[in-house]
Amino acid sequence: MSHAYVHGYGHREQERLHDQARTLSELLHHDTRYPTGSRVLEAGCGTGAQTLTIAAQSPGAHVTCIDISAESLAHARERTAAAGLRNLSFQQADLRALPFDAASFDHVFVCFVLEHLPDPVDVLRTLLRLVRPGGTLTVIEGDHGSVMFHPESAAARHTIDCQVQLQARAGGDACIGRRLQPLLRAAGAAQAVVSPRFVYADASRPAWVDGFTRKTFTAMIEGVKDEALAAGLSTPAAFDDGLRALQRTAEPDGVFCYTFFKAVVQVA
Amino acid sequence: MSHAYVHGYGHREQERLHDQARTLSELLHHDTRYPTGSRVLEAGCGTGAQTLTIAAQSPGAHVTCIDISAESLAHARERTAAAGLRNLSFQQADLRALPFDAASFDHVFVCFVLEHLPDPVDVLRTLLRLVRPGGTLTVIEGDHGSVMFHPESAAARHTIDCQVQLQARAGGDACIGRRLQPLLRAAGAAQAVVSPRFVYADASRPAWVDGFTRKTFTAMIEGVKDEALAAGLSTPAAFDDGLRALQRTAEPDGVFCYTFFKAVVQVA
Repeated sequence: MSHAYVHGYGHREQERLHDQARTLSELLHHDTRYPTGSRVLEAGCGTGAQTLTIAAQSPGAHVTCIDISAESLAHARERTAAAGLRNLSFQQADLRALPFDAASFDHVFVCFVLEHLPDPVDVLRTLLRLVRPGGTLTVIEGDHGSVMFHPESAAARHTIDCQVQLQARAGGDACIGRRLQPLLRAAGAAQAVVSPRFVYADASRPAWVDGFTRKTFTAMIEGVKDEALAAGLSTPAAFDDGLRALQRTAEPDGVFCYTFFKAVVQVA
Repeated sequence: MSHAYVHGYGHREQERLHDQARTLSELLHHDTRYPTGSRVLEAGCGTGAQTLTIAAQSPGAHVTCIDISAESLAHARERTAAAGLRNLSFQQADLRALPFDAASFDHVFVCFVLEHLPDPVDVLRTLLRLVRPGGTLTVIEGDHGSVMFHPESAAARHTIDCQVQLQARAGGDACIGRRLQPLLRAAGAAQAVVSPRFVYADASRPAWVDGFTRKTFTAMIEGVKDEALAAGLSTPAAFDDGLRALQRTAEPDGVFCYTFFKAVVQVA
């Protein structure tokens, strides 16, 4: 897996992921609950932002969490232990060389991982093989092409495009969310049920304005500023203009929208 | 009201509006039901595409439908009569010179109208005055900036942009949906409850692929081809390329997404 650009490194990034998990967990995960006794794999748990919710919502399931980064795994272990969760185990592993037999899990869960991979279909094919017949594969991704805001701003679009380009240069796709059904189809999956999860933030929803517009999305874009400048994709002035324009959408007469996509496939 | 470009004229356009109403009515209107005895104004009913649903869902309410076009009103009258609806009256009127006293209605409903107006805030202010204290104003609009599809296609984006530009030249805004809260705020309304209505069409939802991707959205874009060519915004070859690319998103491995916005304000 390319490490050129993967979210989740650095302290500020960690805080962002924690905030994101709190704000979004209900929207994204409320309908993901695994039965008692089931064996669940979280593929690419990172620092455990989603793991906290997934494990807490399915206290009778056992969740095996893998990630390629030992450092991220250490954080995930620490956070889930601090939350009193005991139905977890952690294992360092590469998605391309997973140490599991076919049909080893009842359910596989993968969230905000495919966006970073140059070969999402291959990885989905691998994950599908790990699910026992009748089990499920759940995939969640965002899509930066879904961003809408008011006031409209070319400067804000420019900063978002910097992240899209950085992710593309690292082999990923920041606009992968809309493609979950085609990707799963290409990986040989049965027809998925895809449900968009729409984030709408205006002054009538202050928790979303603060938790998502400011602390999740704008913070994420701010987090790639140095890389964007180093890559020659922007200038300090242009990038800061864009950040101010994004912050502007969090004002009382502003609006910010983003769509995540969740796909659930039952394995034949 | 400018007539330079308003949807709803011509036979093909009418069929499109009928199909759109059927596919979308549940998504957009399922939560709009007015109590028995209430006086409802539909401002800008056009050919009655939404009227059919609104009047049928609130059989005890009386719906007054106004439109600036006598021809559209005649169609709306005919269609609602054919559907057996009797809780309606029709009146030709201009949104800028409405023949009603303040607080004449319990509820006002306006759908796919503001997108065509150069002065949506003024019209909203007028409509708000017509609602009695405690009544509601409901506003529904689409937003062409919300379009997402797979496979991505610059040609398809070009044709969509033709419609956006035509609508802008006529004084409207095809991307108005996201702005409902700010517009209502500017018109002096109390805080609206805005709920996005997300259309997701892939092979797992064939009714949406046919009813929305093909017969609503692509048909609507196809409907502005002649105007786009006449305005010098495109060439026949480029426009047809775009239409084919939109049709391509309706194939088994394609995806099409669109978002409508619905705002409900309780008038103080």
